[in-house]
Amino acid sequence: MPSSNLLSNFNIAPNRLINTIHETANLFGATGQWGPNSTTDTGVRRLALSDEDKGVRNWYISELKSLGCEIKIDEVGNIFGVYPSKHQGEPTAIGSHLDTQPTGGRYDGILGVLSSLEVLRTFKDSGYIPNFPVASVCWMNEEGARFPLSMMGSSVYAGVISKQECYDFESILDPKPVSVKHELLRTGFLGQTSASYQSNPIAAHFEYHIEQGPILQDEEKDIGIVVGVQAYSWFDVYVKGKAQHTGTTPLSARNDALLSASKMIVKANEIAHKYEGLCSIGTLTLKPASVNVIPEYVHFTLDVRHHLDETLKLMVEECKTEFESICKKPNGTSNKQATVEFSLIQTSPAVHFNQDNINCVRESALEVVGVDKTLTIVSGAGHDSCQTSLHCPTAMIFIPCKDGVSHNFEEYSSPDEIDKGFKTLLGAVVRYDELRKSRSRSA
Amino acid sequence: MPSSNLLSNFNIAPNRLINTIHETANLFGATGQWGPNSTTDTGVRRLALSDEDKGVRNWYISELKSLGCEIKIDEVGNIFGVYPSKHQGEPTAIGSHLDTQPTGGRYDGILGVLSSLEVLRTFKDSGYIPNFPVASVCWMNEEGARFPLSMMGSSVYAGVISKQECYDFESILDPKPVSVKHELLRTGFLGQTSASYQSNPIAAHFEYHIEQGPILQDEEKDIGIVVGVQAYSWFDVYVKGKAQHTGTTPLSARNDALLSASKMIVKANEIAHKYEGLCSIGTLTLKPASVNVIPEYVHFTLDVRHHLDETLKLMVEECKTEFESICKKPNGTSNKQATVEFSLIQTSPAVHFNQDNINCVRESALEVVGVDKTLTIVSGAGHDSCQTSLHCPTAMIFIPCKDGVSHNFEEYSSPDEIDKGFKTLLGAVVRYDELRKSRSRSA
Repeated sequence: MPSSNLLSNFNIAPNRLINTIHETANLFGATGQWGPNSTTDTGVRRLALSDEDKGVRNWYISELKSLGCEIKIDEVGNIFGVYPSKHQGEPTAIGSHLDTQPTGGRYDGILGVLSSLEVLRTFKDSGYIPNFPVASVCWMNEEGARFPLSMMGSSVYAGVISKQECYDFESILDPKPVSVKHELLRTGFLGQTSASYQSNPIAAHFEYHIEQGPILQDEEKDIGIVVGVQAYSWFDVYVKGKAQHTGTTPLSARNDALLSASKMIVKANEIAHKYEGLCSIGTLTLKPASVNVIPEYVHFTLDVRHHLDETLKLMVEECKTEFESICKKPNGTSNKQATVEFSLIQTSPAVHFNQDNINCVRESALEVVGVDKTLTIVSGAGHDSCQTSLHCPTAMIFIPCKDGVSHNFEEYSSPDEIDKGFKTLLGAVVRYDELRKSRSRSA
Repeated sequence: MPSSNLLSNFNIAPNRLINTIHETANLFGATGQWGPNSTTDTGVRRLALSDEDKGVRNWYISELKSLGCEIKIDEVGNIFGVYPSKHQGEPTAIGSHLDTQPTGGRYDGILGVLSSLEVLRTFKDSGYIPNFPVASVCWMNEEGARFPLSMMGSSVYAGVISKQECYDFESILDPKPVSVKHELLRTGFLGQTSASYQSNPIAAHFEYHIEQGPILQDEEKDIGIVVGVQAYSWFDVYVKGKAQHTGTTPLSARNDALLSASKMIVKANEIAHKYEGLCSIGTLTLKPASVNVIPEYVHFTLDVRHHLDETLKLMVEECKTEFESICKKPNGTSNKQATVEFSLIQTSPAVHFNQDNINCVRESALEVVGVDKTLTIVSGAGHDSCQTSLHCPTAMIFIPCKDGVSHNFEEYSSPDEIDKGFKTLLGAVVRYDELRKSRSRSA
C-alpha cells in the first residue's frame, strides 16, 4: 500500500462522522444551545454512568456489533469492540471517552470514540481487512466530573489504581451520592473481562482529540502531532499574615496576607515566562473577608506545568524560594513576616509518546494536510492516552477548536477540521497495522 | 484655676474607672476569655439594643441619676446625662458608645462612656461645680454590627440620616430580623427628646477612645491628640478576563483576571506609599474557582484613605488609571484586554476637629504625661465625633492599645494607660469649661 497515497484505498463516507456526532449528541444529553441551530449548536451533559451515558454506550455497542466486532466490557465499564483481521494478535486500539463535563461540548472525548467507530465503518465499506485486529475503545469516566478522578477507567486498566478503589468512588454531582460500582451495575456495564492491560492487552493506542487550547488555531495549523503530555504539579498554598484595621494600621505596621499572595501570583507568572512553562492560580479564598479588615489568611491553588520533569521541578523550587522571600518583607517597608506553606495536591510526570506511533501520525498528516499545516505539539491536558502509554506504544492527534474553548457548551471544531483529523487517524492506524506486519515478517 | 496644675483640684478615686470597666463588662456581655483571669481577660459581646445593651444602659442611667444628672433619652435611643452647673447653657458633652462588635473587647466605645461618667463622679467627689452643664452621652449603635450602619444614633442627631431611615434598619445578626424601632420600643429606649442637634444642642463634644491602631504603641506615646479623622472611599472593583484551561492555554493567549487583579493590588499598595495614605483590599472572590481553570471574574473591595480630601481624590484617580493600564496588557505578552469597573460603596470626607478643643486636649495631656509622651494624630477609623463635629466644636483623645488590636476579644489597654487618658479627658473638659466662661465674660 503506497504510503504517499494511502487514503485512496478507502471509501470514506462524506459527512457520516459529523452527522453521527450530532445525532448522538441530540439523543444523549444535548443541552445549552448557544447558536441558532438547535440540532448542532448545543453542548452536551453526559456524566459518566448516567442514563445519558448508558444510552450512548448501548448505541455504541450495537453499532460495533453491526460491523462484526467482538465486544468486551471489562469490570470497570471500559468497552472494547474488536474488528476482525487477517492474523491473530493483540488489537491496535483507537480509544477515548463518551462522557462529558456537566457543561461539556459535543467534541472532546466523543470525537475520539465516534472517529474510532468511523474507522471501522470505513474498513467495512472499503472491504478492508487489517493485518491485525483493530479495536474501538470507550474508556469509562475520563472526565472525573461525577466521580472525582479523571481517566478513571484507563487508570484501572493501566494498574494505576485498583478496581476496588474505582468501585468505591462516590458521585459528587447527585443529590444522594452513589458509588461507581452501584452505577456500573445499574447501567449494566460491570463486565466480565478483567480490567487490566495484562489480561486484556492492546498492542498500541491512538487517540484523536480536540486540542482544548488555542495554539493550532493561532498558528493556523490543521493537525497537531502530539508527542507527549506535559508534567504538572498542583499545590495548596497557605499564606498567613495578620488581621488589622484598614483605617488605623499604617503601611509600615501591616502584614497583609493578600498583598503577599498577590505578589506571589505575579511572581509565579514571571517564573512561568522564564522557564517557558505554565503557572496558574485558579482558586483563591481569604479570611476574615471584610472591607475594612486586612486579610490574615489566604489560600490559593498553584498549578505548575512543563513538558520536562526536571524543569517542572526547578519551577516549583523557584516558586517556593520566591514566595518565602516575599514573606520576609510582606509590605515592602514592614518588619513583620508572613508565612507560606505548600501542600501537594497531585503531581503527574511528563508523558513521552512512542516514536513509531508519532511517525505514523506524522506520515498520515503529511498526506492529508501537508507539512505546512501540521505542528508538533505537547498536550497541556491529561488524556486516557497518558495511562495507555505506561504499557503500550501510544500517540495522539489534535485538531483546532475555536478559541481553545473546551469543557463548555460552546466548544466547537468545524466539519472540515474534524474530517481532516479523522483522515489522519485512519491513515495513522493503517500505517501502524502495516508496520506491525512488516515487523512480524522480519521477526 | 492654674492650668499647669489643674488636676490637683480634683479628688480622683484610684482604680474606680478600671473597676467599673471590668464590673460592667462582666455583668453585661462578657465572653471570649483569652487570659488566665476570668474577671478581666475576656472580650464583650454587646450588640446594639440587645438585652446586654439594655442592661448596661439602664445601669448607666441609674448611675447618672445618683450623681444628680438630668436624664434625656432621645427618639433614637441616644442618652444624655446632664450634670448641673453654675450657669445655664448648652452642655459640654463627653460621649461615645456602649455597644460592641460581635467579637468586641472591653474598651472601644465603652471606655469613652464610662470615662465620661467618671468625670462626673470626680466632679461630685471633688465638690466641683462646672461653669456650664457637662453631659455624659451614650450614642446608640455606633458599631453598625447588628443594625448595619455605623454611627447610627449620632448620624440621626447630626441630621445625616433621618429618624425614619434609622427606625427602618433591620438587624442582620438575629435569626429573625427585627427593626431598630422594634428594639427601641422593646428595650424602653424610644425616648421623648427630639433626636436633633437643633432642638437638643450640645456646646462641644469630647471623646476618649483607644487608638485601634499601633502607632502610639510603636512610637511609645501615652496620649494621641486627635486633630481629625481621615477621609475614605470604598469601592467594589470588578475585573473580567477569560476562563481558559490552565494546562492548554499558553501564556501569550491568556487573559487571567486574577493575575490582573493581583497586579492591581500590588499597584494600590505602591500608590498608598507614594501618597502616604492607605489602600487596602479586604475582600476578594473569583469565578469559576477551579484549580485548572484560569479565573474569568474577580471582584474585590478597595478601601482608600487619606487625611486630605484632595489627596484621597488623587489616589483614587491614580488607582483607576493604573488599573486600566494593567488591563491593557493583562499577562505581559498577551494582546488580550481585561476590563475593570469601579462602583462606589461609600465615601466620607476628611474631618478636621476644632482648634479650641484640640488645644484643651493638648494642654491637659502636657500636664498629665508631658510633651514627649504625646503625639498629634489623625484617626484612621470613624467615630461618633465625626458626626458631632458637623455641628459643634469637637476633639478626641487616644490612648495606646496592645498591638493596635481592636474589634477583637483580646483588645487591651493597661490600667495605667487608661488612667492617663482619663486624666487627660478630665483636664480637657474642665479647661474647655473655663474657656467658655472666659468667653462669656468677654462677650
